[in-house]
Amino acid sequence: MLFSKLFCPTFKENPKDASIVSHSLMLKAGLIRQTASGIYAWLPLGLKVLRKVEHIIHLEMEQAGALNVLMPTIQSADIWRESGRYDAYGPEMLRLKDRHDREFLYGPTNEEEITKLFRDNVKSYKQFPMNLYQVQWKFRDEIRPRFGVMRGREFLMKDAYSFDLSQEQATISYKKMFSAYLKIFNTMGLQAIPMQADTGPIGGDLSHEFMILANTGESEVFCDSKILTLNTVAQAINYSTDVEDIYSEYTKYYSATDEKHDVLDSRYVENVDSIVSMRGIEVGHIFYFGNKYSKAMGLSILHNGENINPLMGSYGIGVSRLLGAMIEASHDEKGIIWHKSVAPYLVMLNSLGNDEEVIKIAQHIYSFLQSNNIEVLYNDTLDGAGAKLNTADLLGFPYQINLGSKSLALGVVEVKNRKSGEVIKVAKDNLQELLNIIVL
Amino acid sequence: MLFSKLFCPTFKENPKDASIVSHSLMLKAGLIRQTASGIYAWLPLGLKVLRKVEHIIHLEMEQAGALNVLMPTIQSADIWRESGRYDAYGPEMLRLKDRHDREFLYGPTNEEEITKLFRDNVKSYKQFPMNLYQVQWKFRDEIRPRFGVMRGREFLMKDAYSFDLSQEQATISYKKMFSAYLKIFNTMGLQAIPMQADTGPIGGDLSHEFMILANTGESEVFCDSKILTLNTVAQAINYSTDVEDIYSEYTKYYSATDEKHDVLDSRYVENVDSIVSMRGIEVGHIFYFGNKYSKAMGLSILHNGENINPLMGSYGIGVSRLLGAMIEASHDEKGIIWHKSVAPYLVMLNSLGNDEEVIKIAQHIYSFLQSNNIEVLYNDTLDGAGAKLNTADLLGFPYQINLGSKSLALGVVEVKNRKSGEVIKVAKDNLQELLNIIVL
Repeated sequence: MLFSKLFCPTFKENPKDASIVSHSLMLKAGLIRQTASGIYAWLPLGLKVLRKVEHIIHLEMEQAGALNVLMPTIQSADIWRESGRYDAYGPEMLRLKDRHDREFLYGPTNEEEITKLFRDNVKSYKQFPMNLYQVQWKFRDEIRPRFGVMRGREFLMKDAYSFDLSQEQATISYKKMFSAYLKIFNTMGLQAIPMQADTGPIGGDLSHEFMILANTGESEVFCDSKILTLNTVAQAINYSTDVEDIYSEYTKYYSATDEKHDVLDSRYVENVDSIVSMRGIEVGHIFYFGNKYSKAMGLSILHNGENINPLMGSYGIGVSRLLGAMIEASHDEKGIIWHKSVAPYLVMLNSLGNDEEVIKIAQHIYSFLQSNNIEVLYNDTLDGAGAKLNTADLLGFPYQINLGSKSLALGVVEVKNRKSGEVIKVAKDNLQELLNIIVL
Repeated sequence: MLFSKLFCPTFKENPKDASIVSHSLMLKAGLIRQTASGIYAWLPLGLKVLRKVEHIIHLEMEQAGALNVLMPTIQSADIWRESGRYDAYGPEMLRLKDRHDREFLYGPTNEEEITKLFRDNVKSYKQFPMNLYQVQWKFRDEIRPRFGVMRGREFLMKDAYSFDLSQEQATISYKKMFSAYLKIFNTMGLQAIPMQADTGPIGGDLSHEFMILANTGESEVFCDSKILTLNTVAQAINYSTDVEDIYSEYTKYYSATDEKHDVLDSRYVENVDSIVSMRGIEVGHIFYFGNKYSKAMGLSILHNGENINPLMGSYGIGVSRLLGAMIEASHDEKGIIWHKSVAPYLVMLNSLGNDEEVIKIAQHIYSFLQSNNIEVLYNDTLDGAGAKLNTADLLGFPYQINLGSKSLALGVVEVKNRKSGEVIKVAKDNLQELLNIIVL
């Protein structure tokens, strides 16, 4: 892609309405634009990251045996009356009426919709266990939207719902998602720590928030410092055999959100001295709620001669919010530092100055990288060298290839690693070495 | 994928609320379920088709130089007041208020939003021409939603918007989309005929509806029968050199929607005898509207010392509607007949009966196909042979591989082409031949 053909309106000044760095950088790097309070349009670079994040989530959800569905954004009020939540939900629910004066709402979450879909279409115990998930836009009418996509009103969420016939199987379904989440965040280069979270009237231990540690985090969290050093889940997970071990490895250490924090928890009391307090950004929440919705909404399945209300859990990832959280966790004073797995492009190619030879070689490298399926953005504009280098740092792709007449005169092009800042000089004719550096 | 693990609730009876065959088949084949009048949930098989359709559109839009963005579903009423359409739009617009009593709406289309986005972020004539597109959910509050996803209320649409500085360039942008649409529909196995459509107060010729011919089509259309025999755009289009020719090739023949139909059009009057009348389903609409929105909303660009209101066009494809249109155009009394490019799976593998040898070979073929990256759905349930074959025909994947003990005793498996009905017997050990048949 040529930068001159892209719609990527960058700017230098810190925007006044952005109080945290990720919001500011997403605006400055031309990833998003606000269209109304807490509502954003995604420009090409931001949308590319969003789609890569979605893709990573889809792949792992599929590995974990979940089935992809898509529910509408607009829901009938009736099903929320069935569950008893229509009146309970409060003003965060965006309520509306259609032209026939029937009551609807823009879904803030989908427990009701999925319970109804399952109730009306699954009739046999043989179809259990089942996990249905979607990636779909939600709306929560926050009273004071802020922090850009971190606390927006219209936001993209991955929400999964598990259905099981026994507590034992439901626990396995929960642990599958627990493991999948560790893997998903790890793939994106994020360390997200599962923290015991409030279970309210449901009780039990099966509620975890996944927290990315960042000084700007909204929540205070507490954990045994040893959980921070755990080997993250890097290999492919065998969901039939691995999930008990992964779950045990993490839950043997204390970790809790503010609401759940209790240093007197007898299971962990011996290690109370190694508990540290930090700030975290919630990027995922998994929650077991048993028969709460299946019972209220009359979902039952005949199994072994009994009518059973299936046991459910829900599993959310804040997809659009993740972009903000990633930037909070990975940036410097110059701009964003994207992880390879989600970067809009792997390489930013800069021709510095208007020397014909520079431009000729830049075009040659551009073609070479494209023919090797490298995602490369070539800044072919007439901007000055300083401006191009600043833009490259702001956009934060993993690698920059910089070509100037001085270094070319010495026979080299420079490859900069955005994260480490390391610059490697490569002989201008040795394109294979160039390729090796950026695909390593 | 194993059919026993899939969420695909099929049924046999014709649903009462479905008055056209595509609606009926989408319900019976477990592709969609209605959640409220004109609002649907997409089940795994339906969603797979939807995503493949989207993917084909994305690839060609990118080839044509369009840039992918994503605008929110909820729009502020203010920008619709700027364009003057807020009061004009009528009750199809789903209006709503947020908790602070501010007026919003669920976007039925995005001319206002894109004009504002462009106005606020594009400042130089150097960035022209530009075409921004998205695939996003829209809502139109139809008074009587019907025909399933063909006339739903919440629907998925691809909408592109072109921005140009001169009439000449705007016409080229229009012809690029005209060509891209022919290519997109052709890739999906559809013959969509561009028909002159009403331009209203804008005038001129730059409005075409793309119509799939089907007896159940909502609209009457008229065209020179020769346009039906044109070679469709099959090869990759070079958007710098090919679009004039493609546009001329099609527009030299008469074709018009009902509203635009005029046999006295002097350009075509010589061929009036070869004009035929048919029924069509609109799947795309491209429309040039000049400076209508840029002028109303104060979008101007300094070019050659003058402030110019850029000239715009919009280009829509009804993505969710396309699934209904495809089925209307391609089905038989037994079920759907998917084109390869959009079929949920390429192959349905059926083990007929419970013979151990049958199941063993079925599993072997299943693994073989998967390891060759063939999308295969294996019906491993205990359903009877007749039920499995009926389900396979209903779901309509391009190929069925059927294994029964009788044919296996003769050393063969049967491969059925869903469209032609042709059955080829393949030696049970010759998996390579099996593969050759289905990837041809």
